[in-house]
Amino acid sequence: MHDIALIGAGRIGKIHAANLAASPRLRLTRVVDPFPEAAAAVAARYDARVSTIEEALADPSIAGVVVASSTDTHLPYSLAAAEAGKAIFCEKPLDQDLAAARESAARFEALRARLFLAFNRRFDPNFAALQARLADGAVGALETLHIISHDPAPPPVDYVTISGGIFKDMVIHDFDMARWLLDEEVTEVFASASVLVDPAIGAAGDSDTAKTILRTASGRLCMISSSRRSGYGYDQRIEAFGSKGMIRAQNQLETTVETWGESGAAADRFQNFFLDRYAVAYAREAEHFADILDGGAPLVDFRDGVAALALAEAAARSAQTGERVLL
Amino acid sequence: MHDIALIGAGRIGKIHAANLAASPRLRLTRVVDPFPEAAAAVAARYDARVSTIEEALADPSIAGVVVASSTDTHLPYSLAAAEAGKAIFCEKPLDQDLAAARESAARFEALRARLFLAFNRRFDPNFAALQARLADGAVGALETLHIISHDPAPPPVDYVTISGGIFKDMVIHDFDMARWLLDEEVTEVFASASVLVDPAIGAAGDSDTAKTILRTASGRLCMISSSRRSGYGYDQRIEAFGSKGMIRAQNQLETTVETWGESGAAADRFQNFFLDRYAVAYAREAEHFADILDGGAPLVDFRDGVAALALAEAAARSAQTGERVLL
Amino acid sequence: MHDIALIGAGRIGKIHAANLAASPRLRLTRVVDPFPEAAAAVAARYDARVSTIEEALADPSIAGVVVASSTDTHLPYSLAAAEAGKAIFCEKPLDQDLAAARESAARFEALRARLFLAFNRRFDPNFAALQARLADGAVGALETLHIISHDPAPPPVDYVTISGGIFKDMVIHDFDMARWLLDEEVTEVFASASVLVDPAIGAAGDSDTAKTILRTASGRLCMISSSRRSGYGYDQRIEAFGSKGMIRAQNQLETTVETWGESGAAADRFQNFFLDRYAVAYAREAEHFADILDGGAPLVDFRDGVAALALAEAAARSAQTGERVLL
Amino acid sequence: MHDIALIGAGRIGKIHAANLAASPRLRLTRVVDPFPEAAAAVAARYDARVSTIEEALADPSIAGVVVASSTDTHLPYSLAAAEAGKAIFCEKPLDQDLAAARESAARFEALRARLFLAFNRRFDPNFAALQARLADGAVGALETLHIISHDPAPPPVDYVTISGGIFKDMVIHDFDMARWLLDEEVTEVFASASVLVDPAIGAAGDSDTAKTILRTASGRLCMISSSRRSGYGYDQRIEAFGSKGMIRAQNQLETTVETWGESGAAADRFQNFFLDRYAVAYAREAEHFADILDGGAPLVDFRDGVAALALAEAAARSAQTGERVLL
Repeated sequence: MHDIALIGAGRIGKIHAANLAASPRLRLTRVVDPFPEAAAAVAARYDARVSTIEEALADPSIAGVVVASSTDTHLPYSLAAAEAGKAIFCEKPLDQDLAAARESAARFEALRARLFLAFNRRFDPNFAALQARLADGAVGALETLHIISHDPAPPPVDYVTISGGIFKDMVIHDFDMARWLLDEEVTEVFASASVLVDPAIGAAGDSDTAKTILRTASGRLCMISSSRRSGYGYDQRIEAFGSKGMIRAQNQLETTVETWGESGAAADRFQNFFLDRYAVAYAREAEHFADILDGGAPLVDFRDGVAALALAEAAARSAQTGERVLL
Repeated sequence: MHDIALIGAGRIGKIHAANLAASPRLRLTRVVDPFPEAAAAVAARYDARVSTIEEALADPSIAGVVVASSTDTHLPYSLAAAEAGKAIFCEKPLDQDLAAARESAARFEALRARLFLAFNRRFDPNFAALQARLADGAVGALETLHIISHDPAPPPVDYVTISGGIFKDMVIHDFDMARWLLDEEVTEVFASASVLVDPAIGAAGDSDTAKTILRTASGRLCMISSSRRSGYGYDQRIEAFGSKGMIRAQNQLETTVETWGESGAAADRFQNFFLDRYAVAYAREAEHFADILDGGAPLVDFRDGVAALALAEAAARSAQTGERVLL
Repeated sequence: MHDIALIGAGRIGKIHAANLAASPRLRLTRVVDPFPEAAAAVAARYDARVSTIEEALADPSIAGVVVASSTDTHLPYSLAAAEAGKAIFCEKPLDQDLAAARESAARFEALRARLFLAFNRRFDPNFAALQARLADGAVGALETLHIISHDPAPPPVDYVTISGGIFKDMVIHDFDMARWLLDEEVTEVFASASVLVDPAIGAAGDSDTAKTILRTASGRLCMISSSRRSGYGYDQRIEAFGSKGMIRAQNQLETTVETWGESGAAADRFQNFFLDRYAVAYAREAEHFADILDGGAPLVDFRDGVAALALAEAAARSAQTGERVLL
Repeated sequence: MHDIALIGAGRIGKIHAANLAASPRLRLTRVVDPFPEAAAAVAARYDARVSTIEEALADPSIAGVVVASSTDTHLPYSLAAAEAGKAIFCEKPLDQDLAAARESAARFEALRARLFLAFNRRFDPNFAALQARLADGAVGALETLHIISHDPAPPPVDYVTISGGIFKDMVIHDFDMARWLLDEEVTEVFASASVLVDPAIGAAGDSDTAKTILRTASGRLCMISSSRRSGYGYDQRIEAFGSKGMIRAQNQLETTVETWGESGAAADRFQNFFLDRYAVAYAREAEHFADILDGGAPLVDFRDGVAALALAEAAARSAQTGERVLL
C-alpha cells in the first residue's frame, strides 16, 4: 500500500481520487488545491487530509504524487516532486512550451525521475489490445495508420484561447498514439487546418478541423483526422494497415440495442463523453502508477511528452505555412 | 448445352427463364403457359417457341423441364415429365397433400426420376456456406438450431385461402432447412400459432405467427420462428449452436451506408423482397439443374419434398391440438 | 445515507459490498456470515463490523438488509428481516419450492414487506433500454419474443445436484425477463430439454439444453433458448418482434478490436463471465435499493419471484412429460 | 432499343458486352478488337458481328460506342466516335497526358459530344446512396472526407510500367469521387507516397502506398488512402463528416456468415475482386448509357476526366517534391 498526494482537486483530479481509493494498492492521504473547498471535499470523501504542496513533498510517507493541476503548473510541480524523490503521475501535457519541456527533460533525466505522463488513450483496453496485437505481428509489418479523433462538441472559446491551439491541446494525444504504434520516429509532418465548426475559434487564432500526415524514415505514413465537433458523439478510432492485413479499434456504443423498422435499423450513439469512454483507462492509469511504485518502468514518460509536443509544434507550423516540416 | 422447356411463365417462371438464358450451359427452347400472352412474351424475349406440354415432352431435344406452374399442377406435370424421361426442376412444394405426395414419390422412385425440388434457400450463398462449414465441424457437433423466417408483409387473404396454411406454404421452407442442417430425422414436433398480424387470416382459418420446436432422436432441438409480417423487411436468419461454438448467417442489407447523427446510427433495412434476397440462389438453381443434366445427383429431391410436407402437417396438427406430435 | 447489513460474504456478497461502498447513498455497517474469516475480510475492507443476524436485525440504525446467503436461507432471512421492519434486497431465487414461496408471499404481503428480489438482468443497461423502448412503442405492439441465454461453461455436477434443475436455477432469469417484457401473464408452457453438454448432468437427473415456448392469453409467444455451455462465451441476447419492427439487445464484446486478414475478419469474444457482463447491473441494483430506502417501490418483488418459480415448475414438468402445461 | 458497337473485347469489354445483352434497352451489334478471336468470341456469344472501327462508325444504325480498348486509344477512338455523331461510353481514364486530355476536351466541347466517362464507383449502389444522402443534407454541410481504396494485391510490374503511375492509374478513381462528393473544386494537393509493398514497383519508378490531402477554397479537407496491396481483400470505403454527423459506406462481405468460437468471432472477408464488388455498378453504367441515348445528360463526362487527371498530376508532383501543389 503506497500513500499518495493529489495535487489538483478539479474534474480530472476527482477521477484520479476515486481510482486511487478503489485500488487496494494505493491510499490517497493528502489533497492539495488552491481552492480550499475543493481540496476539503475530496479529502473528506476519501479520509485524506488537506495539505500544501510543501507539506506533501516533505512527508516521507508519501510515495507518489499525482499532478492534476492546471497545465502551466505541470512542470514546476513535477520537478519539485522529482527533487523530493517522489514518483510522479503527471497529467498530459507536460507543458505547452517545447523549449521549457526540453529543458525540464534534462533535469528529470539527471534526477532519474520516475515520471509517468498520463496519456490516457494508451490505457484504453481497445487501443491497448490493438497495440499489443500489432506489436505481436497480427497484421505483419505496419505500413500505414489512420487515427480518427473527433470531439463531440467544441470547448468554449475561453478555453481555446489558453489551450495552446488544437495541435498542442487535442491532437497531442494522437501524436503520442502515432509514436507508440508507428514504433519509429516521425521525420516529416504536413498538416492542413480549417475553421469549419465555430468562427469564434478562428477569430481566436486557432483552427477546429485538421488532417495531418506523418512520415517516418522508412516511409511509414500516418494520417490523423481531428475535429472539435463531430455532431454524433465522441469518435475515437484507429486503423492500422500492415503487410498482412488491417487491425482496427472501433468505437463503443452506449448500449447494444438496435431497433429495426420500416426504414432500416437504428443503433445507439457512441459513448459521448471522454469520462465514459476512458473510465477504464483512468482506472488502469492508477494501477500502472502502483506498478511504478512497485519498481516498474513508466510506459510513457517525460521523453514521450517532449516528443509529442515537438510533433504538435511542427504540425502547427505546417498548417500555418502550408509547407511540410522536416524534423 | 441442354435444351429446356419451361412450364409456367408467371413471376417465378420469368426468373427461371432469365437464369436459363444467362447460363452458357442451358438454352430455353419451349415455353408452356395456359395464358398465351404470358407464354409468348417469355418465348419472344429468349428466342424460344410457345408449346403445349405434350409437344414439349414429345420433343426428344428437350433434356429437362422446369415446372413453375401453379402448385396443384406440380405433381402431375412432374410425373408426366418423369415418364417422358426428362430431368425435372420442380418449384416447391411438391404438393399440399401428404398422401398424394407419398404416392407420387413411389412412382418417381420406380421411374428413377431425376427430380430436383427447388427449395431456393439451400442455394443462398450465405445459408449454403453455413451448411458447408457446419458439416465441416466448424462449431463441433450440432446441438440446437434457430431459424428465423419473417416475411415483410402478409399475402392477400385470397392467397392465404388456397395456400394450404402457414405451415405448408411458408414454414415448409424452414422444415427443409432444418432437415438439411440437423442431418438427422425429426421425431417430435410442437407448434404454437397465433393470429396477431391480420384478423382476416384468422377468419380464413389460418394463423400468421408461429413458433415451432423440432426434436430429433438424439435430442437435437430446432426452433423455427415464423411471421407473415415483420414490419422491417425480409428477415431470414439461421443460428446453429454446436459443441464448440455458434455459426450464423445474418441478413443482407440494401446498402452498406450508415448515417451517424445526434441520436445514434441509422443503417439500411434488410433486402426486402425474396426476389432480391434470393436472386443469386435462383441463378445457382439453374446451374445446379445443369449439373444434374450433366449427370449429377439432385441436392434435394422428391423424398425431401415428402419429408418437409410431413413436418408441415405435424406442425399444423400440433398447433391445432396443443399436443406434441410424434413422427 | 442508509446503513445496511450484508448477510453472506461469498462471491456475490462481495460484489454487493463493493457496490454499497461505492454508493454515496449507502453505508455497509454490518456483515454476517457463517464463516468468520469471510465476514471479517469483508468487514475490514469496508470499515464495517462482523455481526450475527440477530444483532443486525435488532440494530435500529440498520435500514436495509442484503440477503446474499445460500439459496435455502433466502426465505427465512428475508422473512426475519421483514418482521424486523427492514427493507430487503434478496438475491434470486426467492426459493426452490413453489409451495413455500407462495406461503411466504402471503406473509410478505401481510407485513407489507419492502422486498426487492434482485433479478440482475432487469438492471443491465442494454436490456433495460430494450424494455423501456418496447414499452414506449418503439416497435408497436409486442407480438413475439426470443430470449437466448447460454452460459459459457457448465457448472460442476455437485452444483447441479443442489441447483433445483436447469429451469429453476438458470432459466428462471429468462422467465422473469419474459414476464417483464410480455407484459401479460403466461397461460401455457411447453419445454423440450436434452442432455447434450455433459452426460454427468443427465446422470444427476437434470438437463443441460432446452427450448421453451411460452404463450399468453392474447396469443403472444416467447421462445427461450437455454444451454449450460456455449463454447463461445456468455451469450445473453433478446429479440422482441412487434407490429412495426424488431428491437434487440446484442452481446457486448470484450474489446472493439477487429483483425482483418487473408481469410476474413476476427473479432473478440463476448464478455465471458456474468460478473463482467452484469457489473453495471449489480451497481444499479445497489442504487435501486437506495431508491427503495428513500421510499420508492421495488421494480421486482416477491410476487415476481413466485410467478417466475411457477413458470420454472411448469417448464420442468412439460420437459418431463412431453405435454404442454396450462397455467 | 439502341444498337451499340463495342470497341475492345478484353476483360472489361466482356463485362460491358454482358450488361448490354442483359439490358432490354440496348443491343450489341458490332464488336471491334485487334485480336480477331477475341472479337469473334464476344460477337458469337451475343449474336453481333465482328467489325472494323470504320465500319462501326459508318453504320447509321449504331447509336452508341463503348470504348473499352487500351488506355492510349481512349482519346482517338472517342474523338472519332464523337465526330461520327455517336454517343460515347468511354472507360476511364480519358488519357494519361493532361495536355492531350485538355486539348481533346476542347474538341469534345466544340462537337457537343455526348461522352460518358465511366468512373465505375459513382455507380456503386453504396457510394451512390452515400452521395445522394450527403447532397440531401443527411449530415448537414460537408466538412471533411476520407476515401480508403486499397487493392487486394499489386499488379505485375509490367503493368505498373505502363500504368502512368499510382496517382493516374489508381488514385484517379478517388480524385473523381472526391470531386463528386466535395461539390467544390480542389485548390491544394499534398501527397506523401512510399514503396512498402513491392521494391520492384519502386525500381520501376512508381510508389505503391500513398496518403493524399486535398483542400478546397472554403477549407473542406479530403484524405485519400491508397495501397496497391491490402492483404485482406478489396478495401473500398468512404466516410463523410458533416456539420451534423457522419455518413459512411462500408465494404460488402462475401457472405453474412459468422463463426463464434472460443477465441471470438470470424467473419468473411470483403468481396475481393473489383469485378465482384462493382458488378452492379457496371450493370448500372449500361443503364446510364441507355439513359444518355434516350436524351439524358452524362453524370460524368470529359470535363470530369480532365479534372481528375489534373489532380493526379498535382499529387504525383507533390509526392515527388514534398511540396504542396496549388491549383
